[in-house]
Amino acid sequence: MKKIPFILAGTALGFALSVSLPVHASGNYEAGKAKSTTCAGCHGADGVSTVSSFPKLAGQNRDYLYHALKDYKAGKRKNPIMAGQVEALSDADMLDLAMYFSKQQGLYLKY
Amino acid sequence: MKKIPFILAGTALGFALSVSLPVHASGNYEAGKAKSTTCAGCHGADGVSTVSSFPKLAGQNRDYLYHALKDYKAGKRKNPIMAGQVEALSDADMLDLAMYFSKQQGLYLKY
Repeated sequence: MKKIPFILAGTALGFALSVSLPVHASGNYEAGKAKSTTCAGCHGADGVSTVSSFPKLAGQNRDYLYHALKDYKAGKRKNPIMAGQVEALSDADMLDLAMYFSKQQGLYLKY
Repeated sequence: MKKIPFILAGTALGFALSVSLPVHASGNYEAGKAKSTTCAGCHGADGVSTVSSFPKLAGQNRDYLYHALKDYKAGKRKNPIMAGQVEALSDADMLDLAMYFSKQQGLYLKY
């Protein structure tokens, strides 16, 4: 009978994880698209920057993009433009943006 | 008659620029390809990293790639793996590598 609290706790934890983790772990594409308008000025609406000094984001690995944003926010990666851009971004925002840009198709399908 | 030294100097300068600038300004693709073998372990032979935490380099803007390498070397951009990798790279090496990876076609033509 002592097992019941653990089973209940385990079930609740499992449910909470199944509900919350997929969103937090991977980001939301549509939310990312909506939030990406600010990024478009330098990185292009579809993540293909036409200015050679700015990186293309289209098709970039999602984890890399997410951690790049996190590092800018934490001050580990320094860039005066990006520092201002990430200031107001939440962790969910960064996941959403990383999801959106990682799913863009990049330069080469267009040619 | 006083113009002659200037004309000669101008011609010499023009010749020197035409010979040396294209290589130094843009990097050499074949040299970059040869030097890229070290990068392949993490970034893929064609710059398409299969590990999500490492950035894809294929098709990335050349100036961005070059300045990323320079920033790693100068310690402005910090990453323990990349710090070791760029240690022995010359400016010409970085231009060559940036040229090579910027010309790779990336993920999307393959599908």
